[in-house]
Amino acid sequence: VSDTISSSSPRTGATRATELRATSKADVRRLCGLAQGSAHELERLGREDRAAMLDSIADTLENNHEALVTAADDETALGTTRLNGELTRTTFQFRFFAEVLREGSYLEATIDHAGSTAMGPRPDLRRMLVPLGAVGVFGASNFPFAFSVPGGDTASALAAGCPVVVKAHEAHPLTSQLSFEALRAGIEAVGAPADAIQIVYGRDAGAELVADPDIHAVGFTGSLGGGEALLSIIEGRDEPIPFYGELSGLNPLVVTPRAAEARGASIAPDLVASFTLGAGQFCTKPGLAFIPTSPSGDEMVALMTEAVRKSPAQYLLTTGIASAYEGRLAELGRAVGVTRLAVGDSDSNGFAVGSQLFTVQSGQLSKTLTQECFGPVSVIVRYGTQAELLDALGALESSLTTSIHLSDDEAELPSLIEQTMRGRTGRFVYNGYPTGVAVAWAQHHGGPWPSTNSLHTSVGATAIRRFLRPVAWQSAPQELLPAELRDGFTSIPRRVDGVLTLPTAEVR
Amino acid sequence: VSDTISSSSPRTGATRATELRATSKADVRRLCGLAQGSAHELERLGREDRAAMLDSIADTLENNHEALVTAADDETALGTTRLNGELTRTTFQFRFFAEVLREGSYLEATIDHAGSTAMGPRPDLRRMLVPLGAVGVFGASNFPFAFSVPGGDTASALAAGCPVVVKAHEAHPLTSQLSFEALRAGIEAVGAPADAIQIVYGRDAGAELVADPDIHAVGFTGSLGGGEALLSIIEGRDEPIPFYGELSGLNPLVVTPRAAEARGASIAPDLVASFTLGAGQFCTKPGLAFIPTSPSGDEMVALMTEAVRKSPAQYLLTTGIASAYEGRLAELGRAVGVTRLAVGDSDSNGFAVGSQLFTVQSGQLSKTLTQECFGPVSVIVRYGTQAELLDALGALESSLTTSIHLSDDEAELPSLIEQTMRGRTGRFVYNGYPTGVAVAWAQHHGGPWPSTNSLHTSVGATAIRRFLRPVAWQSAPQELLPAELRDGFTSIPRRVDGVLTLPTAEVR
Repeated sequence: VSDTISSSSPRTGATRATELRATSKADVRRLCGLAQGSAHELERLGREDRAAMLDSIADTLENNHEALVTAADDETALGTTRLNGELTRTTFQFRFFAEVLREGSYLEATIDHAGSTAMGPRPDLRRMLVPLGAVGVFGASNFPFAFSVPGGDTASALAAGCPVVVKAHEAHPLTSQLSFEALRAGIEAVGAPADAIQIVYGRDAGAELVADPDIHAVGFTGSLGGGEALLSIIEGRDEPIPFYGELSGLNPLVVTPRAAEARGASIAPDLVASFTLGAGQFCTKPGLAFIPTSPSGDEMVALMTEAVRKSPAQYLLTTGIASAYEGRLAELGRAVGVTRLAVGDSDSNGFAVGSQLFTVQSGQLSKTLTQECFGPVSVIVRYGTQAELLDALGALESSLTTSIHLSDDEAELPSLIEQTMRGRTGRFVYNGYPTGVAVAWAQHHGGPWPSTNSLHTSVGATAIRRFLRPVAWQSAPQELLPAELRDGFTSIPRRVDGVLTLPTAEVR
Repeated sequence: VSDTISSSSPRTGATRATELRATSKADVRRLCGLAQGSAHELERLGREDRAAMLDSIADTLENNHEALVTAADDETALGTTRLNGELTRTTFQFRFFAEVLREGSYLEATIDHAGSTAMGPRPDLRRMLVPLGAVGVFGASNFPFAFSVPGGDTASALAAGCPVVVKAHEAHPLTSQLSFEALRAGIEAVGAPADAIQIVYGRDAGAELVADPDIHAVGFTGSLGGGEALLSIIEGRDEPIPFYGELSGLNPLVVTPRAAEARGASIAPDLVASFTLGAGQFCTKPGLAFIPTSPSGDEMVALMTEAVRKSPAQYLLTTGIASAYEGRLAELGRAVGVTRLAVGDSDSNGFAVGSQLFTVQSGQLSKTLTQECFGPVSVIVRYGTQAELLDALGALESSLTTSIHLSDDEAELPSLIEQTMRGRTGRFVYNGYPTGVAVAWAQHHGGPWPSTNSLHTSVGATAIRRFLRPVAWQSAPQELLPAELRDGFTSIPRRVDGVLTLPTAEVR
């Protein structure tokens, strides 16, 4: 039947039917209702019990490690080494958010006792963040664990106390279903409400999901076009809801003349490894590399050309991504002033493609060259002077990252680069590569449009804030306040009468 | 000429031309460019110098106190007592944000040193919030100081380091111009960039402002219709920007049966004073009061009826607000099951109107009765049982506030009310009235749509976050980091390797 969900193998291109079906409109409505129906219970679990739930989810994911990785490798061809690492990152992320909950700062608990101020008497005011309610999460194709069903959006939303309805990505439906079952088992194992996680299948179901009145926010990692389509559905809702789209990244990387001279020969192969990693299907892939017009720059280009020529064919995730990649390669090849430097090994099986490398002079950088391209390709931009470099950077759209390779004690040019890119970068990477996004307190994975909506991160501790909103209580009796706002509660950081106060040691 | 801006007097209805003119499209473009051009310098001032700038603005506003209040009283008829208090609140707000800057927590400075984790090695990561760039602010009609040119949006945006282009409200153009001049003088007095504050006039200029490519966020306090119109312009931009609209509030207030019995006679006149305050032109006006069907409830209604009958006529701000008020009164009078209880004194001068009071049984609460109405009117909803009360509350839209009057040691019913209203309330007020929004660390002035976009506040310390976005630095050399992220910087709270760390006493 037409509403059966298929699973494809990138290695062979073969498609097989699964037992999964596209979720009907009525079922999307019903599942969103069930999710929202569990919101109160999920919130009332409190920080400690929700942290235990996240740890339990990490356990069940680990217990199903082999089955999950096998299914994901079959559906994505990303290889078991990468997928093992990705699943480890994914379970780490659940445990990390458990730590964020136990630490408690994320609540922003704030107490102003009644008193007099220069503007007159002030009543007792207490404020903290509370969950938004059920949220929709869209799995991404390129990270079947870390940014899909059990990914950062799901982990941070559940941590916040928001039930989650996931839209499974078409590229890995069986992995999605297994992940969903592991999540649900982890939730049930600690007696938390199983309805707090739901899954839907099919593009129509995704559209219904973002329009559903029980959905209070949407987390999305995917293409700019896909994000804009969802955003326009959201704009048609009676009640606007936040849309957190992580959409696009060109991720320029600059090698300063002094860095090329000092370390060009070691940067070149690492840079090729970064843009071909995971078949170039990272939102943080360095798509544009600025290399100086100089003898050491020439040597870097020669080394990169050689490395790309020797690079093996890799499988892209879907036939759609593979044909888009071929289309973009053709566009790049036709662009004015562009030279194709290298073509790696290719392979005619499934969705396999070869890596490619192009180059252009900075003065000829056009719109065709500065848009994200999914796949193992990058464009080297040669620049002569500092002014040429800064002009070219100044014409780029915003990105998730900007990387700068510099030499020891070099500050002036890097500082100018940072000034130029500050308004359009989420993360600056020094002497490194943007692929790889550590889950950490200080992480930021975002950036001005079209990277994401600018104010929020989709990786790291503060990703939880996307799913929380403030509430204030004025002159409330103690017993009607949340525990964290009562007098004498001392186990989390709070701001009391303007002064940030750490938890008392005994209680911690 | 047609593009001259007029100023009206609510006391006489007379209109006079001013020397101000509607800002042309080209001038809006130019002024936004000037504002954005000062962004870098404003950011580079740093926290201490920007705090001094805010204090200086407070000083110049105070130095122009008399001229400002005179102009505002002429254009709004709100009276000098109220306007003196409002201007004091406004200067307090600038000094409060100076304190927020000096304290420094708002930067969310976070450092994770390089190390190994369960997911592998982690690079050195440092994160803090940076300003968005120039923002647009729309002055509101009902608070010519506190929510207009020198209001909370302007103060929090300048504090964040974002230049501000204000759209002056038509209801008080001369007050707006004087306020703008005071802001600019305060900025110039400390050598900060004068271009960081700009003003535009006229509705067309407002539409140009939100569409301008140099504008990175919009703060708006006004009607739901006005907000939706701006939002639809923003949706048409190439780059979406955040819209912070504070739009609408019905602000239900509940008196429990036990509270009516214990304190009904004192609640009744205070409640009338709250909904007639400032001619009922507060976004926090209690527009719906739930009073039990009981002898003490009857007594409350009688006392409120008497108080409204005796209440003096008041001037509304504009002829538009006055005619909308009369229209809504007619609608309320025609609504099924509604009884008009009282009509206060009226007056035929200018935009003067009388206060009114209506009542209805909770079972007959209709959409007509549950929409915000600007002006000195409220609707008493009588409820028999707890179930009737909760059913009626459960059908309301979201509001900025929900107020609950309860008796000593009463917890069960208030807790059910809070549960019912939690998903649609920004601030719970106990045994008090929602009018009056203290500027404080723990304040929240917001709430789910249509009160505002749900995640942010427009009053209180965290209002600054609307105009900030995160940036992360990975493995950055010390000299390329912002001062607050360098090793050894100890004068603000920071999170270091996951641990929240207070400033060291010596430096503070």
